[in-house]
Formats: sequence, structure tokens, C-alpha cells
Amino acid sequence: MPDTLHVLNGPNLNLLGTREPEVYGRATLADVEAACRAACERHGLGLVFRQTNHEGELVTFLQQAQGSVGVVLNAAAYTHTSVAVADAIKAVGLNVVEVHLSNVFAREAFRHHSFISPVARGVICGFGIEGYRLAIDALASSLADRRVS
Amino acid sequence: MPDTLHVLNGPNLNLLGTREPEVYGRATLADVEAACRAACERHGLGLVFRQTNHEGELVTFLQQAQGSVGVVLNAAAYTHTSVAVADAIKAVGLNVVEVHLSNVFAREAFRHHSFISPVARGVICGFGIEGYRLAIDALASSLADRRVS
Amino acid sequence: MPDTLHVLNGPNLNLLGTREPEVYGRATLADVEAACRAACERHGLGLVFRQTNHEGELVTFLQQAQGSVGVVLNAAAYTHTSVAVADAIKAVGLNVVEVHLSNVFAREAFRHHSFISPVARGVICGFGIEGYRLAIDALASSLADRRVS
Amino acid sequence: MPDTLHVLNGPNLNLLGTREPEVYGRATLADVEAACRAACERHGLGLVFRQTNHEGELVTFLQQAQGSVGVVLNAAAYTHTSVAVADAIKAVGLNVVEVHLSNVFAREAFRHHSFISPVARGVICGFGIEGYRLAIDALASSLADRRVS
Amino acid sequence: MPDTLHVLNGPNLNLLGTREPEVYGRATLADVEAACRAACERHGLGLVFRQTNHEGELVTFLQQAQGSVGVVLNAAAYTHTSVAVADAIKAVGLNVVEVHLSNVFAREAFRHHSFISPVARGVICGFGIEGYRLAIDALASSLADRRVS
Amino acid sequence: MPDTLHVLNGPNLNLLGTREPEVYGRATLADVEAACRAACERHGLGLVFRQTNHEGELVTFLQQAQGSVGVVLNAAAYTHTSVAVADAIKAVGLNVVEVHLSNVFAREAFRHHSFISPVARGVICGFGIEGYRLAIDALASSLADRRVS
Amino acid sequence: MPDTLHVLNGPNLNLLGTREPEVYGRATLADVEAACRAACERHGLGLVFRQTNHEGELVTFLQQAQGSVGVVLNAAAYTHTSVAVADAIKAVGLNVVEVHLSNVFAREAFRHHSFISPVARGVICGFGIEGYRLAIDALASSLADRRVS
Amino acid sequence: MPDTLHVLNGPNLNLLGTREPEVYGRATLADVEAACRAACERHGLGLVFRQTNHEGELVTFLQQAQGSVGVVLNAAAYTHTSVAVADAIKAVGLNVVEVHLSNVFAREAFRHHSFISPVARGVICGFGIEGYRLAIDALASSLADRRVS
Amino acid sequence: MPDTLHVLNGPNLNLLGTREPEVYGRATLADVEAACRAACERHGLGLVFRQTNHEGELVTFLQQAQGSVGVVLNAAAYTHTSVAVADAIKAVGLNVVEVHLSNVFAREAFRHHSFISPVARGVICGFGIEGYRLAIDALASSLADRRVS
Amino acid sequence: MPDTLHVLNGPNLNLLGTREPEVYGRATLADVEAACRAACERHGLGLVFRQTNHEGELVTFLQQAQGSVGVVLNAAAYTHTSVAVADAIKAVGLNVVEVHLSNVFAREAFRHHSFISPVARGVICGFGIEGYRLAIDALASSLADRRVS
Amino acid sequence: MPDTLHVLNGPNLNLLGTREPEVYGRATLADVEAACRAACERHGLGLVFRQTNHEGELVTFLQQAQGSVGVVLNAAAYTHTSVAVADAIKAVGLNVVEVHLSNVFAREAFRHHSFISPVARGVICGFGIEGYRLAIDALASSLADRRVS
Amino acid sequence: MPDTLHVLNGPNLNLLGTREPEVYGRATLADVEAACRAACERHGLGLVFRQTNHEGELVTFLQQAQGSVGVVLNAAAYTHTSVAVADAIKAVGLNVVEVHLSNVFAREAFRHHSFISPVARGVICGFGIEGYRLAIDALASSLADRRVS
Repeated sequence: MPDTLHVLNGPNLNLLGTREPEVYGRATLADVEAACRAACERHGLGLVFRQTNHEGELVTFLQQAQGSVGVVLNAAAYTHTSVAVADAIKAVGLNVVEVHLSNVFAREAFRHHSFISPVARGVICGFGIEGYRLAIDALASSLADRRVS
Repeated sequence: MPDTLHVLNGPNLNLLGTREPEVYGRATLADVEAACRAACERHGLGLVFRQTNHEGELVTFLQQAQGSVGVVLNAAAYTHTSVAVADAIKAVGLNVVEVHLSNVFAREAFRHHSFISPVARGVICGFGIEGYRLAIDALASSLADRRVS
Repeated sequence: MPDTLHVLNGPNLNLLGTREPEVYGRATLADVEAACRAACERHGLGLVFRQTNHEGELVTFLQQAQGSVGVVLNAAAYTHTSVAVADAIKAVGLNVVEVHLSNVFAREAFRHHSFISPVARGVICGFGIEGYRLAIDALASSLADRRVS
Repeated sequence: MPDTLHVLNGPNLNLLGTREPEVYGRATLADVEAACRAACERHGLGLVFRQTNHEGELVTFLQQAQGSVGVVLNAAAYTHTSVAVADAIKAVGLNVVEVHLSNVFAREAFRHHSFISPVARGVICGFGIEGYRLAIDALASSLADRRVS
Repeated sequence: MPDTLHVLNGPNLNLLGTREPEVYGRATLADVEAACRAACERHGLGLVFRQTNHEGELVTFLQQAQGSVGVVLNAAAYTHTSVAVADAIKAVGLNVVEVHLSNVFAREAFRHHSFISPVARGVICGFGIEGYRLAIDALASSLADRRVS
Repeated sequence: MPDTLHVLNGPNLNLLGTREPEVYGRATLADVEAACRAACERHGLGLVFRQTNHEGELVTFLQQAQGSVGVVLNAAAYTHTSVAVADAIKAVGLNVVEVHLSNVFAREAFRHHSFISPVARGVICGFGIEGYRLAIDALASSLADRRVS
Repeated sequence: MPDTLHVLNGPNLNLLGTREPEVYGRATLADVEAACRAACERHGLGLVFRQTNHEGELVTFLQQAQGSVGVVLNAAAYTHTSVAVADAIKAVGLNVVEVHLSNVFAREAFRHHSFISPVARGVICGFGIEGYRLAIDALASSLADRRVS
Repeated sequence: MPDTLHVLNGPNLNLLGTREPEVYGRATLADVEAACRAACERHGLGLVFRQTNHEGELVTFLQQAQGSVGVVLNAAAYTHTSVAVADAIKAVGLNVVEVHLSNVFAREAFRHHSFISPVARGVICGFGIEGYRLAIDALASSLADRRVS
Repeated sequence: MPDTLHVLNGPNLNLLGTREPEVYGRATLADVEAACRAACERHGLGLVFRQTNHEGELVTFLQQAQGSVGVVLNAAAYTHTSVAVADAIKAVGLNVVEVHLSNVFAREAFRHHSFISPVARGVICGFGIEGYRLAIDALASSLADRRVS
Repeated sequence: MPDTLHVLNGPNLNLLGTREPEVYGRATLADVEAACRAACERHGLGLVFRQTNHEGELVTFLQQAQGSVGVVLNAAAYTHTSVAVADAIKAVGLNVVEVHLSNVFAREAFRHHSFISPVARGVICGFGIEGYRLAIDALASSLADRRVS
Repeated sequence: MPDTLHVLNGPNLNLLGTREPEVYGRATLADVEAACRAACERHGLGLVFRQTNHEGELVTFLQQAQGSVGVVLNAAAYTHTSVAVADAIKAVGLNVVEVHLSNVFAREAFRHHSFISPVARGVICGFGIEGYRLAIDALASSLADRRVS
Repeated sequence: MPDTLHVLNGPNLNLLGTREPEVYGRATLADVEAACRAACERHGLGLVFRQTNHEGELVTFLQQAQGSVGVVLNAAAYTHTSVAVADAIKAVGLNVVEVHLSNVFAREAFRHHSFISPVARGVICGFGIEGYRLAIDALASSLADRRVS
């Protein structure tokens, strides 16, 4: 059971597909989940896929990811305001890849700072849904390295 | 059922009437609700009136207001710290009027900045409970314009 | 004669209707005056309605409003640069409602700071001409309270 | 029943003992609760001891502490980001002692600012679990003063 | 009558020739006017040439320039402090060339920021009286382009 | 006629005596003028005493003070916002003493910065009307020095 | 010939493998090139792979990439200081993916700002050499989309 | 002789009891010393108790505390301005508890920053004289731990 | 003995007359003392005149001025860095006039901020030695007021 | 041979005409050179016209312009980042006119600061290619003055 | 007696050798003095070598160095906080070389700013005790130049 | 061949002797090279002496200095803007002494920050050519230490 991967989504991502489609695209969160499931199956990994509007619940989800292969985290708005989410990552010692659908650096200034980046293994942004797939590949690839060595 | 108006209240507003009455006045949240209900009835509008201490729940309330005439939003402390609430307003495309009981610009510096103002239709502050009534009038008035044209 | 209300307008508002109509709308300053006059009559109040491009004249207008029910002030550009206007409000002890046609918080950063807000009773912005009417209602409503008590 | 003392703990403190032990020590939250209970008993005080990952729930806990002797508050990450928690303390008029296990001033810059400190009675940081005991002593000592005078 | 060009001068420029000649040179404002008149005649343009110490009057002058070929504006001190002047330019939709006698970027820091530059067509500084002539040439040149196309 | 001294007063000082007396005292501007006249007579100097609410008029008053013994300037609100007033002082080469009735450094932060101080000979603040008398003494004393040497 | 992809590397990346291996790993730039070549072959794309220590040469390389499928750009130190590199990307209209070997957000503060991010399609950082492979996949994937639609 | 504890007091604390009693209380520095002596005796510790108005002398006192159990330091104003005091603590490797009578975080902004906090073991503020007693308890408690282990 | 006035001078003022005479003039500190003594005698006041290079000693001098008519304080460099000096003034409740020989606002930026101004009765700067005389007059004048009323 | 004028162009200007034509227009760098050559011939001046993408080469070009009539410099992106270019201008003592095609003050904030402006004789921006012609006129005009006097 | 050189040391340098040896090395202040004495003898210069923990005493030491060949000054913590020390250097017109044992630019941010550097002849840091020797050589070398010319 | 020392010079230093001699002195770069060669010979070290105006070439020179005794680096303008130069020093692990002819801290503010200082062994500035000699002595002295131990 250790080879499970968590994909955690923050506030307003449940609206994906209808929310500002010119920024976020027309795919829904169900489409994201399907793409993640396919990618995980290709790598022989189990998947836990969750969304929440609550900062505190996101903290709890991260704590429950302890022991997993890694976490693909799109914390949305909490990326820029939550010390609690960053503390949870450090507290559990998670292997986190931070993902954003849009290129946050081409948007408002307050989206340029992330509390999560300094405690993440890496950051991928600007590739829409494709970004989730790339993040899962990156985590699986590091896992493969670990198994070999 | 489209002609419903939402009045959403943020953290600590459940304490209204007992909380620092020299700042916020002696009226309770029930008094606010009664005043809002009277104003909505005068304009022939239904009313959804809610309060929460949770940032995430406020995001959910805003998502659930989709399709309504508009939202009168007193986000209280989350006004100054929540990107998630502002994102929800943009995501759903709500017609929001931001309301504050006190004149926030005459108080602490951290209350002078609002994440909500740039995505709201307008701001009303400093008129106590009366501010809710003015906000409902403003929303109803824009609705009347839309019906005529 | 005490029950007079002053509506004071700052620089460039004489151009209303032709100036950037996508921001400020197509109504002229004469339309604003007519709407204010109607609102004041409904509340049984006299109206003094003035406009000036001069910071110093706006200071003088405010001094001359001493003894009135209150002032609806759209100081336009001087909102953001004039300590003198704010000093006049405090010096005379006026009951001022600050009004802006557009949502200043959704525009350039230098329009986010107001010297007037901390000494005003309240702020209303983003409702176009309607904002003047709401401000007069708010002043009249406080007046009614005072008469009763 | 007035002589109850609340000890409230914020996000990730449920992980105490396993989370970064070189920073936070090896004692668990149960150990903290036991130490607090012993200290309260020594002073003849009842104890309410709670933890939550949710900002909104922490606000609610503080509201429910109304009427108590005082609150020992370790708001963890919310110390640095929550206006809502600070507003709750002022709203209820609580007697709060802010506690931190580590010396937050010797850590990252964003941990040096606290929204809670200006509305707390005092701050104690850097003494690990011992800090909770010192805070309870400080509250009990002020209570004793009040009884005598 | 549309082919008139306005040259507007701000505070203290009436002192030209006697004011800090090591910075501003020895030519008087009458010399500036003569040079401008010669340049306009060479291009077959009428000239309105004005100076004022009043911010509000400068706003009015700009409003009265509506319909002209363009404005050469040396707002002097108001360059750095006046939102009202910048608003007037946008309100009337003027074709403004900002001129300064001295190289303002080589002087005090508060002279490095201009509210006018972002709404001007271009900026010319550091060439003394010659700068007025260059600005008139630039406006006439763009006028010639427009007539041809 | 060279031995005249100008005392120039900025916006809202015409309200002296009724404006926030707990800050500015109960003496009127006429009282200030009388005290200045007495002080000037004691030193055998003529007096020009003026007040204006207009920034541009203050610039003109300063230009007209050219050739005088010196200027006692209480620019009030324009102290903090006017580059034009400071430019006028430099342009005419005036001998200016900056005076404030209240201790501006013990008030709001925006009153701590003065555009005038760097171009004034000296600053006197916090002594009420007495400050005008001290400023006239200082100017007269420097005049005496000049006559002797 | 349009289906070529450019991988461009900035200053000091020629030292890869010997430079601070605890930060950048032990793989050399030749290893990076081999990995990129394999990835491009898998997608049927040609590869141009270059490195330079010169800001100006990097500008020229980007101009020469006009007409290519896209650019994987690791601008190294110039990421944080070069407006010229960002201008080149906009000037040519390139499809750029910004890559960094290390997680720049977990390093010195001056590495947190990038002039390139706002004009890039996306950013990938923290995955070592693997990041180049992910970036090529992302570009190829978008290419596949374009061919289909 | 190693089991001595130093209580060091900075500038103006010799005025305790008469200095702003609404902020600092009515107890004198002699009262503080008596309370400290009682607490030390309870823990079987010797006490060195000193006060100085000199930054340099405070540095010397800290150097002379080398070898002691620990230092309770109320550096008063030097808390906010002295790098030298902080350097002394690091130089000698002292075990310092920083104490303030008042809640410095509820006062002027310049009192919110401390050069001492990052090199102290902990901070206690807001409990008046009681704070000294809590600090001695904290130091004694850590001493007990050391003796056992 | 209550009618004594203290003139206190800070670091480097013992060098007056030889130190940068183009800034501070050629008069020595003995000249300053003579001028102060003459002024005090004219008002029937005793004089304590002191200088020190030590911040701590200046604190002590201020404490010893308790009970005096008032203090003329030229704290020199400590004006800009000493919280301890400002605390002493508040602690003793002194009537302080802050004096500077030069116009500090026309010099380096770090001389524009004073910790003393907010707790002083007034500020006089830029008049050389004459400034001491004006300050003594101001204190004597307020004393005369107090005796009458 | 002294009467030669240098026109130096920075990075990406070789792309002129194809690069963001809505910002920079459709004229090519060859068009700019032709316009400059015509203007120089009209004034009887020789022309050196160069472009480079390299900061260091621009430094060398400026050094080689020593002894010329003056330099028209469009440093493009290096305007905002290069201390070396500004140092070269000062080192050689060049007579530089800074030119920009677009109105840089109406674009991104990082384009509002120029290292070159403080060491240039003047600045001309916002007039497209015409700006080069105006700059050559300005240099020629100053040359004519020098020859006469 | 004019050919004496002063080496002045600030707070905590008396602890050299025992204070954080991984930063400051194991040599004592006596070792520093011996090295300085040897260097001075080699150049035929007398040496005054002093240390103090007091800011005021350092000011006095600098005043007493008047007439000397020059001063090697390691002001330690006062480097970053003392305007008084910098004023003393300017007041006496000393020839000062600023020395630091460690590379202050590689340490905490508050150590990057020096009030002394702008008034020093040069700065040497990062070479441990060797830095004192280099500073003495530099002063002696300039002395030799002066003797020859 | 390991005992070679590199002296690397940045942009505009080829102009030494003619460039602003009041700041940089009259010695040429050839004089600097001669002085360096003499100093190296005295220590039995070979010398590589180079200058470039290109940031990228300076990076390459530093990479080529790998294996040398150390580098004396005067990066001139690139000191303040180049992350690439600093990265090269860290990448190669060079023993660098940063040298500046003038006292950069007494010049413009943008010259006070150095990207190189944090990765250099030490800094020497303000001694003209003499600074190069001091830097070579410092490197040689450390080399001698290494040989002995």
C-alpha cells in the first residue's frame, strides 16, 4: 500500500471548466482526475484524488498523505496565503510537486509569491491539465531511481 | 427562483451586538437579517442570509450563490487575507457589493487593503446596519435597469 | 436653513458624460445634479451642488458647508493627493460621505489610497450616479435617527 | 464553572512529537495536555484542551471560551496570517497568553510578525512544553490577584 | 480653427530667466513664447501660449485645449504631484508632449516620477528652450502624417 | 521699502480658533496677525500678512515677497504635498522660516515629511502662536547681523 | 525543417557535473544533451542544443530560434537580471518553457524573481536533468494538440 | 559559585514606579529585586542584580555573566537599537531570557523589533514584575533538567 | 530651586567651532554656554549646561533634570538613533525643546528622522547658536503663562 | 573628422519592423538608419550607425565614440539593467541623447527606471523613428551654438 | 609625535579568541595588538591601541586621535548603528580605514550597512587579523606618498 | 604551474587614467599591471592579467582561473548587477579578493550592493592602485600559511 500517490486540489478547483475558461481551460476536475488515474496506472501507482475549499482540510489531507510516494499539490489561492499548508508539508516530510494550471508569474503580483515552493521538491506551472501528468511522471521517475539504487 | 439575493457574513459577525459595541453598534445579526429581509421584500426579492467563521465555507457559499441577483458580502477579517474568497467571486462571475459596518479606513493599517474590492461592483462602508440596506437598494436598482432595457 | 445638504465635486467632473464613458458612464454633471435634487426633495432637504477644478476652492466650499446636514464629496483626483481637503473636513467637523463613480480599487494603484477616507463617515464607490443617491439616503437616514432620539 | 481555563492549539500541533523533533521536541500533544492538566489542578482550575487544523474552528473555539479565566493560545501557523483569530479575541474580550514552543524570532522572517500579540496580554516563546506551564501560572497568578482585591 | 497648438506652462515658469539661471538658463518666458510662435508659423499652426501657478487653472486650460492639434505641456512642479492634471489629459483625450527644460532625471529623486508621462504621447527633457521647438516639430510631423493618410 | 517681512499662511488657517482647538488652540488668525505686527514693530519692520486656501496663490504670494527681509511661512497642508511652493522659494531665493503651530512630528506620519524644510533657513514647530514671534525674532536677528557686518 | 526544438543554456552551465554537485548533481552538460536528444527523437523532433556565457549571445540564439517548435530555456543567472533575454522572447514570439535544475525558490532571495517567467508558457524547476525531459514532453504534447486540431 | 543567576536591567528602569505608572505599574526596581531574590532562593540560586543607563556597560555586565546559570535581561530601549548587546550574548554564549514589563507588541511599531530575541532562549512579555519570576522559573527548570540528565 | 533650566548637548558638540565650520559655524561650546547664560539671566532662571559623548550619560542627565523648568536638548547624532533618550523624556515627564544648529532636513536622509520630536514640546532648527536663545525664550514664555494663570 | 555623430542601438533592435509592430511600428532598422543619414547630411555631419545584442560591445562602441559630436543612444533593454553602459558614458565624457521608440513610462514598471538618464544630456521618448530625427536636431543645434559662441 | 597611528576597537572585541572562534578565529586582542605594533615599528610609527564597549568612549577616542597619521577602526556592532561615531570622524577630519575580521557581507543583512564606510578612506574585511596589518600598510603607504611630494 | 595568480578587470577599466581622474586617479591599466607583476614576483607567483567589457567573457576568465592560487577581481560595474559572475566564483570554488579603486560606499547608492562580496574571501576598497598590491599580499600570505601547515 505504500505505492500510492496523492493529488490534492485547493479552493474553487471544483468549478474547473466553468470558471474563467479563458484562463483555466474547459476541462473539468473529473477530467483532471481521469488523466491522473491513467498516468498513475501507467506507472503502477495507486491514486488518492481530493478537493477542498478549506485551508484546514487541506492541512489534514496532507497529514493523511504520510507514507505515500508523493503529493501533487495544486493549493490554488492557499498557495499565496497559507503558512499552515507549508508547515504541514515540512511536518510530515512529504515529497511534494507544486502544480498550477496557469502561468501564475504572468498574472497579478500577489500570485508571484508561494509559501509552498520553498518546501516543495519542484514546481510546474503553465501547462494546464498536462501539468498534472508531468508532475506524476516526475514523481514516478524519482521513485524508479530509488528502487534501482 | 433567479431573483434571490444572498447576504453573506464572515467570521465573528455572529457576535454582533456584544462585540466591541463602540465600534460595531448594539444591533445583533438577527437585526441585520430582519432589516435585509424587509429591504428584499420591498424590492420583491428572495433572501438567503448566512454567516460562517470558516474561510472555506464562505468560498462554498459564494459558489452556491451562482445564478442569484447578487451578493452583499461582509467578509470581515477574510476581506484582508483571503485570495480564495476573491477567486470564488471571479470564478462564479458574481455581482458582489462589499459591505463593512465600520469605516475600515479609519482603523488599523492592515484593514485598509482588501482582496475583494478589485473584483466587487462597489464598496459601502461606515454606515453600520444601514450599509446592508443601501447595498440591497444598489443591487435592486441595477436589476430594475436590466429588466427595462 | 440648517437642513441643507452639500454635494461637492472635484476636478474634471464638469466633463462627465464625454470623459472616458466606458469608465464613468454617459450621464452628465447636470444629470447628477437632477438626481441629487430629486433625492433631497424626497427627504425634505435643501441642496447646494458645486463643482471646481481648484483644490483651494474645494477647501473653501467645505468650509462654507459648516452647519449643513452633511456633505456628499466626490473629490476626484484630489482624493489621492490633498491633505488640505482632509484638513478642512476635520477643521469644520463635517459629516462627509465620500463617493466615487467607478470602483477605484479596480483601477491604478495610486487611486487605492485616499486622504479623505479616514476622516469621512463612510465611503460608497462603484455604483455610478446611483452612488450619489445612496449617499444622500445614508445622510438623511442618520438625520432621521437624530431627530427621533 | 467560571474558573475554567482553555488551552487552544492550531494547525499541525496534532503531529507534535513526530514533526521536526529537532525544532519542536519529542513530547506529544497528549504530553502537553497532561502537563496543562497538572498545572490547572495545582491552581484549582478546570481545563478545556483542544486542537484544530481549521482557522474558522479556532475562531469558534475562542468564542466558546467566553466567560473562562483565560486562554493559552498556540495558534501555530495562523499566528502569522489570521486577522480572524485576532478579531475573535477582541470580540469576546478574552484574556489570552500567546505561546510558542520554539523561539519564533530565531526562525524565518514571516514568523516574526504576529497578528495576535497586539491583542494578547503577554507572549511566552522558546521554552517548549514548559511554556504552557508558565502561561497557566501567569493566568492563575493574575486570577489570584483579582480574588484578593 | 482646428489647427491650433497649445503650449501650457505650470508654476514658477513666469520667473524664467531670473530663477536659478545655472539650472534653467537666462531666456525668459517671453523668449520661449517667441520661439514657439516662430516654430508654429513655420508649420502653419496657430498658437495658444499660457502660464499659471494654479493646479486647477492648468486643469481648465487643458480642458479648453480640446479640439486642438496637440499640447506642449511643461507642468513644472505639478508634473510630480498632480493626478488632476493627468486626469484632465485622459478626460479630453489630448495629444500631449511633456517637456522639461532641465534633465529632471539628473536632479532630486522626487522629480524622477511623473504622473503625466503615462498619458502623454512622448517626453522630451534636458534641451532647454530648444525642447519646446522639438516638441512642436514632433506634433506637426504627426499632423502631416495624418493629413496624408 | 526693503525692510518688510511677509507672514504667509496656507489652507484652513482662516478657521483658527474654531478648528480643533485641542490641537491648534483658541487664538484666531487675527490674534496671530496682531502678535506678528507687535513683533515687527519692535524690530522696526513693516509687515505683509496673508492667508489663502489655494496652492497657486501661495506660490504667487511667495513670488511677490521677493526683495523682502524674509518670510515666515506656515504652509499648513501644502507643507506635505507641494513641490510648487518649494520651487517658488528656491526660484526667488527667499529667506524662509517654516513655522507650525502644533508639533507635527507627534501627529500622523504623512505630516512628518516637508517639501519646504530642505529649502528653508530653519524650522520652528510646537509653540503655538509663540512660534510666529520666535520666527520673526530669528529673522530680525539675522538682519541685525547683516547690517553690522 | 519547422519541427526543430531548441534547448538553450546560460552562463556556467558548461561546468555542470563539477559545479557545486550537492546543488546541481553530477551529470554533465553532455549528459543533458544526450537526454534531450533521446526525448526529441521519441517525439520525432530535431534538436539544436547550445550553451553560452554571454547575455548578448543568448539573445542572438533566441532570435535564431524563430520558426522552431519551441525553446527549452535554462537562462541560469540571466534569469534574474536580463530584460534583454525577456525582450527577445517577446520580439520573436517564441514558445518558451523555463527550466531550472534546482528549486530556485528554496535558495537565495534574488533567485526568486525571474524576468522570463511572465513571457514564458510555463515553468519547471527542481527536478534536475529530468526537468529538461519534462519540458520537451510538454512542448511536444502541445504540438500534438495543434496538429490534431 | 557557578549557580548564580544575573538579572540585568537597561536604561530608565531605575525610574520604575514613578515612570508612566499606567504603562509600567507602581512597583520600584527595589521591589523587582526583592521578588527576584525570593525566586532565586526558592531555587537555591545566587543572584546578581544590576541596572545601567549605558549600552556599553550593559555589554560589560553581560560579559561578566559568563559562567552563570543564565541571564534575565530587560534591555529596555536598547532592545530595539543595540547590535552590541546582541553580539555580547552570542560572544559569551549566554543562556538569556528576554523580559519586558509591558506587552511591547501592543505599543509603538519601533518596539516590535528586537535585536535580542533571535539570540535569546525565549521571550516573556506583558506580565509586569511577574515576568521576572516566570523567567527565573524557566531558567531554573532547564537547570534541573540538566542536572538530572 | 525649581526655576532652573537645563541645556544638554550630545556627542561631538564639544568640538564646536573646529568641526566642519562651513556646516556648524565658528562659535565654540563655551560661546553657546555664554549665550544661554545671558538668556537665562534675562528671564531670571538658573542654568545647568552639560555635554557628553555617551548615550547613557545623556539619559542620566535627563533624569537629573526632573523638577526643572525645562530642557533645551541638542542630542546631535543620538537624535536619530536613541530610543533610550526618548524614553527618558517620557519617563521623567520633561518639558523638552529639541534644537539643532543646522537645518537637518537639508542634510543626509538619516538625519530627517528624530526619535525625540514626538515626545518634545517643539523643534527649532537651522538658526545656529541663535536657536538656543529662541528655545530658552520659548520655555520662559510658557513659564510666564503658567505663573499668570 | 570630429564632426561625426554616432547612433548606437541595443539588443533586439535588429528585429525592428517584425518585433511587436503594435508597439514599435513597422519600420526596420535600415529605415531608421536611412532617416538618420538624411538628418545628418542636412546638418553636414558624418554618421556611424551600429547595433549589437551585447552589453559589453555597447560599452566598446561608446568608448569608440570619444571625440564625436555626440551619441544618440537607444540602449533598449540595457537602459534598465546596465551600470556598465552608464559608466562608459561618464568615463568618456560623451554628449548623449537617450532615445526610445515607445513611451516607456506607459509600459511595465521596470522600464520606468533608466541608469542612463542621469548621465545623459536629455531624453526623448514616444515618437517612434521620428525620435531619432529630433535627437539629431537637438545635438546639431547645440553644436551650432558652440560654433557661434 | 605626529607620526602616531591609532587602532581603535569596539564592543566585544576584548573577548576575541574565545568569542565564536569559527567566525572570528582563535587569536586574542593581545595578538592583534602585537601584530599591529610590529607593523607600526616596521613603518617607524608610534601606536595607540585601545578597546571599549561604550559608543560614547569610542567617540572620545576618535576625537583624541586628532593629529595622528590615521586610524584603523574596527567599530564592531557600532559600525551598523552609530551616527555619532561617523560624525566624530567627519568632525575631526580623520584618515580612517574601516576593518572587519569577518566578511560582513556574507553574514546577517543588518551587518551589510555601515554608517562609517561613506566617511572612511577605505574598507578591508574578511582577512581576520591580517586585515589590521593590511590597513596599517595602506595608511603608511599614503604617508610615504605625502612625505615625498 | 599551480602557483599562478589571476588579476581580472571588468568594463571601462581599459580607460583608466583618462576616465574621471578625480575619482579614479591618473594611473593607467598598464601601470596597474606593472604593480601587480612586481608584487607577484616578490612572492614568487606567476601572473595572468586581463580586462574585458563583456560580462560573459568575465565569466569565462573566472572559469579559466580554476586551479590558480587565487583571483584579484575588480568587476567594476558588473559588481552591482551580475549574478553570473558570482555564480562562476562559486561554481569553480575560487579564492577571490574583491578590489575597488574608489570607496564605493561613498558614491551612489546602487554601488553599495555587491553580488560578489558574499562569495569573496574579502573586500578591499578605497586605496586606488595600492589596493591591488594589498590584495596580492593577502592572497600570498594565506598561501604561505597553507604551505607551512
